[in-house]
Amino acid sequence: MKYGIIGYSGRMGQAIEELFSEAGHELVYQMDENGEKEIEKPEVVIDFSLKEAFADTVRVIKEKEVPLVIGTTGLDDTDFAKLDELAEKVAVIQSFNFSIGINILSELIKKVNKYVDRDWDIEISETHHRFKKDKPSGTAIMLGDLLERDVEMHSKRLGSEFGEHEVDFASIGEVLTLKHRAYSRKAFTQGVLLSAEKILDLEPGFYSFSEILK
Amino acid sequence: MKYGIIGYSGRMGQAIEELFSEAGHELVYQMDENGEKEIEKPEVVIDFSLKEAFADTVRVIKEKEVPLVIGTTGLDDTDFAKLDELAEKVAVIQSFNFSIGINILSELIKKVNKYVDRDWDIEISETHHRFKKDKPSGTAIMLGDLLERDVEMHSKRLGSEFGEHEVDFASIGEVLTLKHRAYSRKAFTQGVLLSAEKILDLEPGFYSFSEILK
Amino acid sequence: MKYGIIGYSGRMGQAIEELFSEAGHELVYQMDENGEKEIEKPEVVIDFSLKEAFADTVRVIKEKEVPLVIGTTGLDDTDFAKLDELAEKVAVIQSFNFSIGINILSELIKKVNKYVDRDWDIEISETHHRFKKDKPSGTAIMLGDLLERDVEMHSKRLGSEFGEHEVDFASIGEVLTLKHRAYSRKAFTQGVLLSAEKILDLEPGFYSFSEILK
Amino acid sequence: MKYGIIGYSGRMGQAIEELFSEAGHELVYQMDENGEKEIEKPEVVIDFSLKEAFADTVRVIKEKEVPLVIGTTGLDDTDFAKLDELAEKVAVIQSFNFSIGINILSELIKKVNKYVDRDWDIEISETHHRFKKDKPSGTAIMLGDLLERDVEMHSKRLGSEFGEHEVDFASIGEVLTLKHRAYSRKAFTQGVLLSAEKILDLEPGFYSFSEILK
Repeated sequence: MKYGIIGYSGRMGQAIEELFSEAGHELVYQMDENGEKEIEKPEVVIDFSLKEAFADTVRVIKEKEVPLVIGTTGLDDTDFAKLDELAEKVAVIQSFNFSIGINILSELIKKVNKYVDRDWDIEISETHHRFKKDKPSGTAIMLGDLLERDVEMHSKRLGSEFGEHEVDFASIGEVLTLKHRAYSRKAFTQGVLLSAEKILDLEPGFYSFSEILK
Repeated sequence: MKYGIIGYSGRMGQAIEELFSEAGHELVYQMDENGEKEIEKPEVVIDFSLKEAFADTVRVIKEKEVPLVIGTTGLDDTDFAKLDELAEKVAVIQSFNFSIGINILSELIKKVNKYVDRDWDIEISETHHRFKKDKPSGTAIMLGDLLERDVEMHSKRLGSEFGEHEVDFASIGEVLTLKHRAYSRKAFTQGVLLSAEKILDLEPGFYSFSEILK
Repeated sequence: MKYGIIGYSGRMGQAIEELFSEAGHELVYQMDENGEKEIEKPEVVIDFSLKEAFADTVRVIKEKEVPLVIGTTGLDDTDFAKLDELAEKVAVIQSFNFSIGINILSELIKKVNKYVDRDWDIEISETHHRFKKDKPSGTAIMLGDLLERDVEMHSKRLGSEFGEHEVDFASIGEVLTLKHRAYSRKAFTQGVLLSAEKILDLEPGFYSFSEILK
Repeated sequence: MKYGIIGYSGRMGQAIEELFSEAGHELVYQMDENGEKEIEKPEVVIDFSLKEAFADTVRVIKEKEVPLVIGTTGLDDTDFAKLDELAEKVAVIQSFNFSIGINILSELIKKVNKYVDRDWDIEISETHHRFKKDKPSGTAIMLGDLLERDVEMHSKRLGSEFGEHEVDFASIGEVLTLKHRAYSRKAFTQGVLLSAEKILDLEPGFYSFSEILK
């Protein structure tokens, strides 16, 4: 596949290039704060840049009319309206978290939540490296929102833990624990790769990452 | 609810009576190797006896025409044919494992298995008390059968661990762990109670415990 | 061994009798709110009663001049002064927690604490059943006091967990986790049994349970 | 500190340079299969090369008469005899595993082993990335040798786990778990840094890494 990256020099941009090139894909277009570089027209564009650069992304996709995989954070309703507009002509896959495991975990939590009633205790724990300042993590909050009740959250800050999330469901007789741990940034770039490979076969439209996983 | 127990003096029989009486239900019929005792006709019969006593169970249900919740182990095809026959007239709920958590875990494993491909590593671990002789546990084997491939199994035998089962799914970037631990025999009796309470509203027919949970 | 129990009808008293009789020891003296019953003079007396009954314990030990293993909680300085007085004539083993594992864990924490400097993160977690109201547990506080700094504490309340304590030590490169879980009340009665068996060979004096373990 | 690295271009050599330079130390000497490069005489030399290059290491230390921190694997009795010879004139710190956590874990295992008798179950588990071929890991075997009995070993191979080791000690009443996980190669380079910083104050002689930690 011939692909482009917007946000090329960022940490995710670099990690994406590394994984995509291992998988035999060819980088033919890149853009970042140092400007634009085009070798050839890409078949798909990946955007992990900043909200501030979003207007550029919209312009590039309109011009090239190629599918877009976008993981840029902080997008708001106005931005999503523009993605919907793009999605009339090309396929767009959007997510704030491209980890396959976290997306599966979300589906599992929703499933368990259907089985267990009020008499089950539910608590969420997460562990991240000592430099992470927000407590609890955004992902823990997102997981908590899937449950239809308030749950206790525990946040450990230890060493250089890349990111661990755990949900415990307990009745008087038993406890069921669902846990996810990212080993590295690859937890996220693999989901991007999967999306980029699948998007080539998709009809124009707006897709969430969890729809792609199904 | 007025209920009966076949296998009354066994460990599960005793544990069932304890939980059911806490829940306000009334034991009106019992049978075990010491004979039969009937105060009143039960609305439902629970059977946690032995395969050897199965003929008695069939006779009792035929006579009384009341629904049956059965967790007796070792039933074979001939026995199941007889349960099907009973199920033409009354509701029958059957399972080899009435733990709600293990049944939810089974559903989760099937779900994860749909998402992950061959490039994910899967391993199963279980821990039980030092006196448990079979390795791996029957439940670990049952969980392994849900995956469509051979998986490594690890069996720890430690102290008086009541029963812990864990399945790990790992890709290069991340690991997802599903774990269940039973605190006590209540892990199983609670599923029996749930079944007995629901069976009163069921049409005649044969039901698995996982159908009841849904 | 011929032994006596003060606090015979309490939960610990009952559990002690069960384990001691499995070990072949003979109960020859008992006292509780229902009064005193003496078959024969005991070789050792175990006290798991209430602070309110402590004056009786002192009187009994003075009269019989036999060694004492005491796990009664809530003793204050005045009470300890009386134990010291008894310890002039008989051996006295006292602890607020007779779990062998928790006592080993305490020794390990002190050892790790000598190795790790300020640049290591330390956090303590504990999980107990849903009915436990105090947060964090007394044992977690006791473990925290062994470290010479303030540490974050996390308390989960799940199902009927008997009691789990965990201490994490993490540097930038690695994490060391020490964890203890009690399966049942036996975690405590086994330490009492060990103490009762060893006390017969001890000189008069006051001993902590951790001294006995060494 | 002005330091040298033998085995400069290896993975450990590179990781050592990265950490030492973050800590403000200056690389003034290096050697590897591409040859030798000396800017200035080093105060200490670090050797993470190959057994095949050991003769060069001996020669360099003899010439320069500077202390040596050596983590090269595969050294045999003849090699150790040569290290002893060097240790007559300079301080030598040697270890096959410079992880601080694994060394603390070893000390803890020896301590627990003194407390627990034959009636405790002990099992060892380790998890490493899918590409690790040896089962169990060398470190698991080393930990097992600290116990004075045969223990069951469990080896999981999952994703890109950097390295996790766990030892469980269980009696009928309770279980004590000691677990170590390396986040990255820093788990090892930090121990090397500590050794290099301490060696400047040491008298000539042969030291193990665990002696340095005390």
